[in-house]
Amino acid sequence: MHRILLKVAYDGTNYCGWQVQPNGTSIQQVLQAAVEDLVGEKVNLTGASRTDSGVHALCQIAVFDTNKEIEPWKYAYALNQRLPKDIVVRESKEVAADFHPRYRNVVKTYEYKVLNDRMPRPCDRLYTHFVPVKLDLEAMKAAAAYLAGEHDFRSFCSQKSDAVSTVRTIYSIALTEGDNIITLRISGNGFLYNMVRIIAGTLLKVGCGQKTPEYVREALEFPQEKAAGPTAPARGLTLIDISYPDDEGQPVNNNS
Amino acid sequence: MHRILLKVAYDGTNYCGWQVQPNGTSIQQVLQAAVEDLVGEKVNLTGASRTDSGVHALCQIAVFDTNKEIEPWKYAYALNQRLPKDIVVRESKEVAADFHPRYRNVVKTYEYKVLNDRMPRPCDRLYTHFVPVKLDLEAMKAAAAYLAGEHDFRSFCSQKSDAVSTVRTIYSIALTEGDNIITLRISGNGFLYNMVRIIAGTLLKVGCGQKTPEYVREALEFPQEKAAGPTAPARGLTLIDISYPDDEGQPVNNNS
Repeated sequence: MHRILLKVAYDGTNYCGWQVQPNGTSIQQVLQAAVEDLVGEKVNLTGASRTDSGVHALCQIAVFDTNKEIEPWKYAYALNQRLPKDIVVRESKEVAADFHPRYRNVVKTYEYKVLNDRMPRPCDRLYTHFVPVKLDLEAMKAAAAYLAGEHDFRSFCSQKSDAVSTVRTIYSIALTEGDNIITLRISGNGFLYNMVRIIAGTLLKVGCGQKTPEYVREALEFPQEKAAGPTAPARGLTLIDISYPDDEGQPVNNNS
Repeated sequence: MHRILLKVAYDGTNYCGWQVQPNGTSIQQVLQAAVEDLVGEKVNLTGASRTDSGVHALCQIAVFDTNKEIEPWKYAYALNQRLPKDIVVRESKEVAADFHPRYRNVVKTYEYKVLNDRMPRPCDRLYTHFVPVKLDLEAMKAAAAYLAGEHDFRSFCSQKSDAVSTVRTIYSIALTEGDNIITLRISGNGFLYNMVRIIAGTLLKVGCGQKTPEYVREALEFPQEKAAGPTAPARGLTLIDISYPDDEGQPVNNNS
């Protein structure tokens, strides 16, 4: 038995999200079908992040177990021949049999992109959220600074969340601007349901002048469900990276 | 009678190019239908550049004449309500009745983008040409430097070209790299049929080590149809800007 780890990139535009849903096609479903076609057996594909409908990924992590004997690095190439062009396996390797992509010390990085221009740009429409009002980037940066560190993020969490604890740690949060695109980049040890999109929506309210940066500090000090927000649209969000400081980068020897 | 100038951006993925064609839907056709629906009369829409099937634009220029009395800046907003999301009028204004977008002193700027990474990236697939072989950017820059200035570009022109003269002037040509995307940015007083894509294809041959930078110098010294190339794929190309140094930026008074 081999446990194979896949690093998967996708354009989420035409999918109902990562996870299998009753309505719509999910990325997990398409990828699992490609793996089963390749290995010739039923597999159970587990992803590290359940990205929402319309959210993109540059590096989602997924694992499956198989008895098939294929050199681990070859899975990426063999699967890409079986996948539509909006899903790409960028890397494959074998990991320890007890490696689980969700129950590990993890660093997740997301980017949220806003096109802040007078008019939309067609080639950016699927990957940015368009905001025609000129945003105050300095105010947004001041607001974002409050979010760094360990906090109770209940105010930045959708009511749908079933998390036991709403405490999370944000390791870094940064806003940059170039070519009229504002990019929010955020790394943490995990994010609550819709948390990054609610953070983005909150910072946009600050950027528009509807709220002061201190609004964010207050939402952290007095945690209350859905106090912050709104939830910014899915298309602007991309899962950039998932890394496991303790055990990633140590692929198992293929003969183990 | 008013002559209205439109600055148009589009995602060329789903179109057969700018110009009306017997097969497929063209951008000109969709935009002209939107204008006619708005002004309630037949119009003749003339574009500055006949971009090919699959080529994108951030700023194509198009003009039409109308008797309708609408404040010129409002056309952009009224047309965008009638256009699909992959075509956007970014600006509209009135110009002199003798302004013609093609027969003027013009500076056109194009960008060609190459994703130079080990694996494709789904969200870049429609707007970059994917090249997995590591490219030698310095060699490409050395080759590009030969192209600046006035030359006979016959070697960089498709056989389909019906241009009387194949002499053109390239005002600037630059290659930059960031996030594994190499961008070729090129400005000139006009480009022959497929010229930018043939330049991109030629520079890629140099980048792969199949040709030396001097191959470009020789192709300019001994002009011969299709000597250079190949023609790089359309999806990597975007028409970035068209400007008229002599008379742009001087909109006609609406009461003229």
